[in-house]
Amino acid sequence: MKANIGLFGFGVVGQGFYHILSQKNGSAPGRIARICVRSRDKQRSLPAQHFTFDPADILDDPDITHVVELTDRPEDAFRIVQQALQRGKMVISANKKMLSDRLGEISELQGQFPGALLYEASACGSIPVFQNLERYYAHDEVHRIQGIFNGSTNYILTQMTEQGLSYAAALAQAQALGFAETEPALDVDAHDPASKLALLTAHALGCPVTPEAIFRFGIRTIQPADIAFAARQGRKIRLLGQATLLPDGRLEAWVLPAFVPVDSPFYALNNEYNGVQIESKYMENQVLSGKGAGSLPTGFAVLGDLAASVRPGHTGYTRMQLARSTRPDTDTLLHLYLHFPDAVSRALLPELVPETQENTVAGLQVRGRVALHHLMARRQALLDAGVFLARWEDRN
Amino acid sequence: MKANIGLFGFGVVGQGFYHILSQKNGSAPGRIARICVRSRDKQRSLPAQHFTFDPADILDDPDITHVVELTDRPEDAFRIVQQALQRGKMVISANKKMLSDRLGEISELQGQFPGALLYEASACGSIPVFQNLERYYAHDEVHRIQGIFNGSTNYILTQMTEQGLSYAAALAQAQALGFAETEPALDVDAHDPASKLALLTAHALGCPVTPEAIFRFGIRTIQPADIAFAARQGRKIRLLGQATLLPDGRLEAWVLPAFVPVDSPFYALNNEYNGVQIESKYMENQVLSGKGAGSLPTGFAVLGDLAASVRPGHTGYTRMQLARSTRPDTDTLLHLYLHFPDAVSRALLPELVPETQENTVAGLQVRGRVALHHLMARRQALLDAGVFLARWEDRN
Repeated sequence: MKANIGLFGFGVVGQGFYHILSQKNGSAPGRIARICVRSRDKQRSLPAQHFTFDPADILDDPDITHVVELTDRPEDAFRIVQQALQRGKMVISANKKMLSDRLGEISELQGQFPGALLYEASACGSIPVFQNLERYYAHDEVHRIQGIFNGSTNYILTQMTEQGLSYAAALAQAQALGFAETEPALDVDAHDPASKLALLTAHALGCPVTPEAIFRFGIRTIQPADIAFAARQGRKIRLLGQATLLPDGRLEAWVLPAFVPVDSPFYALNNEYNGVQIESKYMENQVLSGKGAGSLPTGFAVLGDLAASVRPGHTGYTRMQLARSTRPDTDTLLHLYLHFPDAVSRALLPELVPETQENTVAGLQVRGRVALHHLMARRQALLDAGVFLARWEDRN
Repeated sequence: MKANIGLFGFGVVGQGFYHILSQKNGSAPGRIARICVRSRDKQRSLPAQHFTFDPADILDDPDITHVVELTDRPEDAFRIVQQALQRGKMVISANKKMLSDRLGEISELQGQFPGALLYEASACGSIPVFQNLERYYAHDEVHRIQGIFNGSTNYILTQMTEQGLSYAAALAQAQALGFAETEPALDVDAHDPASKLALLTAHALGCPVTPEAIFRFGIRTIQPADIAFAARQGRKIRLLGQATLLPDGRLEAWVLPAFVPVDSPFYALNNEYNGVQIESKYMENQVLSGKGAGSLPTGFAVLGDLAASVRPGHTGYTRMQLARSTRPDTDTLLHLYLHFPDAVSRALLPELVPETQENTVAGLQVRGRVALHHLMARRQALLDAGVFLARWEDRN
């Protein structure tokens, strides 16, 4: 069977997907019949007859077997996916925000209609993490998943470390290269990796958490002094998402910067690379890494879904039926490094029990421990005061 | 469909596989009906009625749907696989030596009979490298595959580096932990990783090479001075297998120690961990890593094959039909570090063009370049003279 595809969206990923399909010609698992875009004014790289502005031209066309949704507005994306599933089509999406916000509704829809939804490109770019969780981990028991889930912030951290750039200069470069989201807060405030971690937590641990339930602290307040501190310790700072199912059934989940040591699997992952570490009962500890952004790598992940969906017997993801804890624990004691610009900001977190602290020209650098719920309560105040913090990894 | 399994061999991997299946009970993709072993005298961990000593009890039983071959003698393994395929059974094997030596015959057999053969556990232990190549890379074009394919030598190198052990002490420890092959030469002279690289080269690059065609130089002659040299350069020594399909169609393939820098994906892989890096047109660069040895991780890879084989529509590996260059090029100029114990051994490789050299108490340490075919001609003489060599990785 070959797919007859209606494509929604023709941005970086959509064009990458189109490009790969057209290079494959006869050997491709499908062909694109129609592309639906929003803007009538934008210059396009293809002739006008490929495009439509009316979603119904795709959704109501009975010859379209597959809908590939690569738009950037979550509400539009949900309507497209919903209507396509209701019409019995196979659906592929990359919209991590929409998927993670509405995973429950989407799971239900899939149960009611014959189609299925795949979304490999929604997390970790080119890395086939969902396919591996679905197939290879089906008989294992995963208890932790963690990783670098955002190429843009990883690019910023790499450039600050390797080139000595300021945060602002590194962010501007990431935007120029097309790695950053249109709205940089999605990256640097860790909304984007929280969405991805939510999806991965559902698939890996069977815990359908919402992104809002995941504590996140991004890299917006990072200073060159923090990068220098990491270097002095032989470490690098990486923005890691982590979800752990504890033996007693409690769930821990957060997205936090972390000081990773040289033997961490994340130490060598630079620039737009993503990586995901899966810890499980039988395989124990595996890591998958690859490009987390970019037109062709991410477009290829979409192609991977397409190829999977036309295989005989394919029925979509099956690991979503598990459903354990859905609320992350907030009592966890975190081992942190914090950088307070001044004494006023230090006073914002009186519950922090310091282990070492150093007064530098850039402010007060403290390592110590604090319960997650205290951090949650002060999160916005700490950010507003310019405090940076990162987990001190005792192990990797 | 559930598999009715005849198991051959009950060593480390066989017992791991048995253990995992029995923990899963009803949710397992199959059950073990009979176990065929060779030795009548060995103490077994299961009651005698589980075992038989006659292969025909499994091969001629029409109720047995799956044969899982986990023996350690390549000739026996081939006969088992051959007869099982001829009888239309699904077959799973982990015998990398047999598989890589006789891949052509095995491919032919699979074409003639309805069964299929899977062998995920034959390379990289728990890492699902064949499944990923089969499914996820089916539409990509791989041009390089490289990695750490031998847990035993990686354990030795790690212990020499981290604990300052001698080669002999580290080897003895690897054997005591069960990581080493019964015959240590298979590991330390790099026969074992050459077999695995041959299989991976066939699957990743479509080049069915034999292990003998792959140049290999193991770690038998390594000295603490070589480890110390690596540390001074901020690098580690790893035994890497590498196969590259060049743009002009030539193939390069070898297994050689290499000095890997801190940003190499192999730097952080210690002890029995394996890792494989796949470079391709669309996904560009991905790494998978995990445990390369051990009863449960490797037993789980066998279970993965079993689960795949009972899925509807499963037809075995399909990427083997490609067939490009089968002879690796021998003109490649290698950038090497060599450690000659004395002037006599240095004279064994007059073609080496030195770039830097240093006289140390342990001998002469040289970095320079030499064509692969010269190295091939002097391989045994260099080993006999106690010369150690490793590739100097210019990039990672």
